[in-house]
Amino acid sequence: MRTGIATVCLSGTLEDKLAAAASAGFDGVEIFENDLVAAPWSPARVRQHCLELGLSVDLYQPFRNFDSTDRETFAANLRRAEHKLDLMEQLGADTILVCSSVAPDAAHDDDLVAEQLHTLADRAAERGLLIAYEALAWGRYVHTYEHSWEIVRRADHPALGVCLDSFHILSLGSDPAAIRSVPGDKLFFLQLADAPRLDMDVLQWSRHHRLFPGQGSFDLPGFLGHVLAAGYSGPLSLEVFNDVFRQSDPERAAVDAMRSLLDLQERVETPGSAAARRPTAPPELPHAPELTGHAFTELAVDDASSGPIADALEKLGFAHTGRHHSKPVQLWQQGEARVLLNNTTDHRERDAVDDPRAAVTALGLESDDPHRSARRAEALLAPVLPRSRGADEAVLHAVAAPDGTSVFFCPAGEHGGSWSADFAPAGNAAEAGTELTGTDHVALTQPFDHFDEAALFYRSVLGLEPETTAEFAAPFGLVRSRAVTDPRRDVRIALNVAVLRRGEEWVPGVPAPQHVAFATGDAIAAARRMRARGAPLLEIPDNYYDDLDARLAPDPELLAAMRECSVLYDRDEHGEFLHFYTEILGSRIFFEVVQRIGGYSGYGTVNAPVRMAAHRRLRVTGSARRPLGT
Amino acid sequence: MRTGIATVCLSGTLEDKLAAAASAGFDGVEIFENDLVAAPWSPARVRQHCLELGLSVDLYQPFRNFDSTDRETFAANLRRAEHKLDLMEQLGADTILVCSSVAPDAAHDDDLVAEQLHTLADRAAERGLLIAYEALAWGRYVHTYEHSWEIVRRADHPALGVCLDSFHILSLGSDPAAIRSVPGDKLFFLQLADAPRLDMDVLQWSRHHRLFPGQGSFDLPGFLGHVLAAGYSGPLSLEVFNDVFRQSDPERAAVDAMRSLLDLQERVETPGSAAARRPTAPPELPHAPELTGHAFTELAVDDASSGPIADALEKLGFAHTGRHHSKPVQLWQQGEARVLLNNTTDHRERDAVDDPRAAVTALGLESDDPHRSARRAEALLAPVLPRSRGADEAVLHAVAAPDGTSVFFCPAGEHGGSWSADFAPAGNAAEAGTELTGTDHVALTQPFDHFDEAALFYRSVLGLEPETTAEFAAPFGLVRSRAVTDPRRDVRIALNVAVLRRGEEWVPGVPAPQHVAFATGDAIAAARRMRARGAPLLEIPDNYYDDLDARLAPDPELLAAMRECSVLYDRDEHGEFLHFYTEILGSRIFFEVVQRIGGYSGYGTVNAPVRMAAHRRLRVTGSARRPLGT
Repeated sequence: MRTGIATVCLSGTLEDKLAAAASAGFDGVEIFENDLVAAPWSPARVRQHCLELGLSVDLYQPFRNFDSTDRETFAANLRRAEHKLDLMEQLGADTILVCSSVAPDAAHDDDLVAEQLHTLADRAAERGLLIAYEALAWGRYVHTYEHSWEIVRRADHPALGVCLDSFHILSLGSDPAAIRSVPGDKLFFLQLADAPRLDMDVLQWSRHHRLFPGQGSFDLPGFLGHVLAAGYSGPLSLEVFNDVFRQSDPERAAVDAMRSLLDLQERVETPGSAAARRPTAPPELPHAPELTGHAFTELAVDDASSGPIADALEKLGFAHTGRHHSKPVQLWQQGEARVLLNNTTDHRERDAVDDPRAAVTALGLESDDPHRSARRAEALLAPVLPRSRGADEAVLHAVAAPDGTSVFFCPAGEHGGSWSADFAPAGNAAEAGTELTGTDHVALTQPFDHFDEAALFYRSVLGLEPETTAEFAAPFGLVRSRAVTDPRRDVRIALNVAVLRRGEEWVPGVPAPQHVAFATGDAIAAARRMRARGAPLLEIPDNYYDDLDARLAPDPELLAAMRECSVLYDRDEHGEFLHFYTEILGSRIFFEVVQRIGGYSGYGTVNAPVRMAAHRRLRVTGSARRPLGT
Repeated sequence: MRTGIATVCLSGTLEDKLAAAASAGFDGVEIFENDLVAAPWSPARVRQHCLELGLSVDLYQPFRNFDSTDRETFAANLRRAEHKLDLMEQLGADTILVCSSVAPDAAHDDDLVAEQLHTLADRAAERGLLIAYEALAWGRYVHTYEHSWEIVRRADHPALGVCLDSFHILSLGSDPAAIRSVPGDKLFFLQLADAPRLDMDVLQWSRHHRLFPGQGSFDLPGFLGHVLAAGYSGPLSLEVFNDVFRQSDPERAAVDAMRSLLDLQERVETPGSAAARRPTAPPELPHAPELTGHAFTELAVDDASSGPIADALEKLGFAHTGRHHSKPVQLWQQGEARVLLNNTTDHRERDAVDDPRAAVTALGLESDDPHRSARRAEALLAPVLPRSRGADEAVLHAVAAPDGTSVFFCPAGEHGGSWSADFAPAGNAAEAGTELTGTDHVALTQPFDHFDEAALFYRSVLGLEPETTAEFAAPFGLVRSRAVTDPRRDVRIALNVAVLRRGEEWVPGVPAPQHVAFATGDAIAAARRMRARGAPLLEIPDNYYDDLDARLAPDPELLAAMRECSVLYDRDEHGEFLHFYTEILGSRIFFEVVQRIGGYSGYGTVNAPVRMAAHRRLRVTGSARRPLGT
């Protein structure tokens, strides 16, 4: 199907927005009036520019407060509309969006509204233009699509139809199934937006918190299924008002937007046509292969951080088991947990403040079909990374995630052609400890502008599903956290972001922290052994254990052991969670060790503020091992 | 009265928060449980630390979900409470806050809740501790202060009283007058918070958007009047959950908080005691003198920007009328509009990205009593600025506003000792044009963390009143705008801020723009004359005028003149507004000329996005006069 995007979705001036929409491959745009009003180009010049960019102008919008009980006001509104019809002729837009009125003089009489819209449709028809009437969720009298359709039905004019907007319909909890009863040729336009479920005024919700499909909580595939079943054949056009997208790079936002439409088309199901479950899926989109585990996590280190990090890994029980054939990359392993330390100068370490610097720069994920994973990623507009390699090295497919992290698709299991063949044996694997069995999750602070983009990226490109978004009060501000995982939870990636972008005036915590969490079968025993080896484990204050006792009253013996070993604890209805951390090892990196008991599937988020305060303390006082400054 | 602040108001760890509270001069703190839990110090050590800082621990909070219909759960809750009473003894806190329950098992039976609280009060009394019971606005059954008082009355225990929280009471629209019927000795604690009026879920409103008194829309002086009339004699303690304060510098936030309490105490009126209208005002707080106008606006310039800005001023009709005796400062004047160009190297120009650099660094405001203005500012914790001066220079009192701008208090009118005596005549005042009559307003982009602080600063320190806050969609993100003005509107300062802090990835507009708006009696004539002199006026696109015609249908002759001269237009129920802008003159500075007709009191905010898009265009394409780069 044709794709479109409203200019209001993107940041910048009209010129910026059109360039971004074209660059992301959209077929058309809805031109938001304010963008045109502030533009230096005449409507005719905008038309020409769109033509050159390969964009059609699918909609001019919005026209507000058209109907009126006051004849004089209605005459003024009609005059205003005529001006806009003039403009549309020059602009080459054949459809204008008319919203249900929110004005005090709005007509509370369906026949009068129908009559007035009929008058407008006459004027439009004279010029070959169309009127798409939309029910705003906060319209004064008309706020459901059923009502807007009833008015359009009464007006009965070939140049008048309805515009459906998924936000207005789903935010009010309307049943979208009845859309099927609207004749397809009366569905003049379709605007798509997702949103998180928020308990707030619907107008504010709409104006600030809309998201691209797949980023929120609305059932967009189901909604679209009904619209398609009704016979709608116009463009799938996005109209998203979002405070973050309004100020972030429009080129990137447009790509995110296009990805959301590709993903939506893949997911949509047209009920009643079971044989063709995904009639609209672009044929070139390969299904997502299963991901079966974390193959490795790569850290970029420098000369100052590589020593301390290697030392910490060793004391956590890792053995240095491999040396890359051609690059200064070390493989460290314990059980199925693998860490690559890459000491090259070109690592993408973007947010570090202190030396020694280190950052997670790549995730190696095991895929059932790495080649197909890569083809899917490319089809979903993920930047494919070039991989320079020596003659005897494995072909590895990699794409860049929104935070710049490389995601490598690795063949599952150990076999020829695997990435590990690029490493010559080093050290003695038998020296590795036995406490850690694999990688439980990787936690990455996301760039503020790209949190929702990241969740959609992992969902659509990798086929991971987002878990519930959590917000918690950390010592230095609110943090939003959302993990993505596969159905078997073999791969877990926790995405974190400050709820408000942090300034630079007051940065007491660890800036943009990242960590790798390893799995153990016995957190207490692991902590004891690692501590005995001198691992730089993070000390947790006594107050935490006193409160834990008051709150959850764990078994006193366990409590004493946790207190002794600085192991934290959480519990939910499915199971228990024991975990502990290292200190910061190079600007923003630390490690975690986690033990999941029973069906606990969280991340101990309740304990994160305690960990942050403890890390902050080391930054203030200086660690005995590695002072980090303030 | 004694002042207090909850640690949850401030960013950082407990150590950071206590230091900030003490440094701002608070008498006591409420210790928020999560802060203590994450702290490395034992409760006894925290007690000692507070003692050393001169802080009392006035409250330990919160204790949630105490009462229960389930006997086993109640027993567990009582055990949990005993743990916290133990802790309070070590901490030296004599009162704990118990919130009304939000749990599914909360007791829906006032007598049962009273009985259970009575049990708890017994336990507390054994240790000489007190229980303050608070109705959360979203409590399951108990959500009004009347209800919490009814339960406390039934429990009838000397160690049990109520805690009043202005947010919980005013957010629900409860009538605070009935507080007077609660015996003063049963008012165990008072928590103060303001908030903007928002139409959203009350819990989210409370957790994210509280403000310090005087920063929001609640009638805190009236509320406090009732509480004092009831006989409350405990501390005035702030409990503000605010997303911005949670992540901004706690030292500054604590000063802002203390200022809010000083201001509140000055404003509070105890009804029934007309003879002592401000019984709680700190005696050392002098009343705010009247401000009668903008004496001057000072721009810091550098060698690259001073020429272009002087040139622009000249073409706007300003004459260079004075040269400072001892500093490289020029006085430019036209009518009562005065601009100082200060070409020194130490100017505070913090956000500039491009050369040539320039910034508004000082506002000269005419005060009825400059000395008293300065004493009041100092009493309200405004940083008083040292002023190095030559022997024959005027004494000028100045304080620093939250954005770093210096505010000078100048004697009203022309007389000996005035600041202008520091300038030797230069040029020829007779050369000045006659279009501009004075300074209408100065618009300053505020640092993100300090927008609410700034509004309170201007309100309390200068006695200006905030006008309505407006939010508008600008091309590069949402902008929040709030002007402060005196009752006669002789002084107007417009404060602007991005609704979300901007990142550095996509900065197409003018970063942190500032402008000075001059008043004219005839905007069209002024624009024509200035244009004829070659002033760098900003061109406004034709589309704007087409839309203006469609929207407001101004007189065609006026419309044509505005279009010709790039003059913008707005209208409200009181009058009309014509205004035009210059291009950017040095990184972030531009000028505006405004004509107010009738009672129009706004700032043409509706036109701001058009201006921003036009300025952005110059940054992209380069101005013929002064290329600014991208």
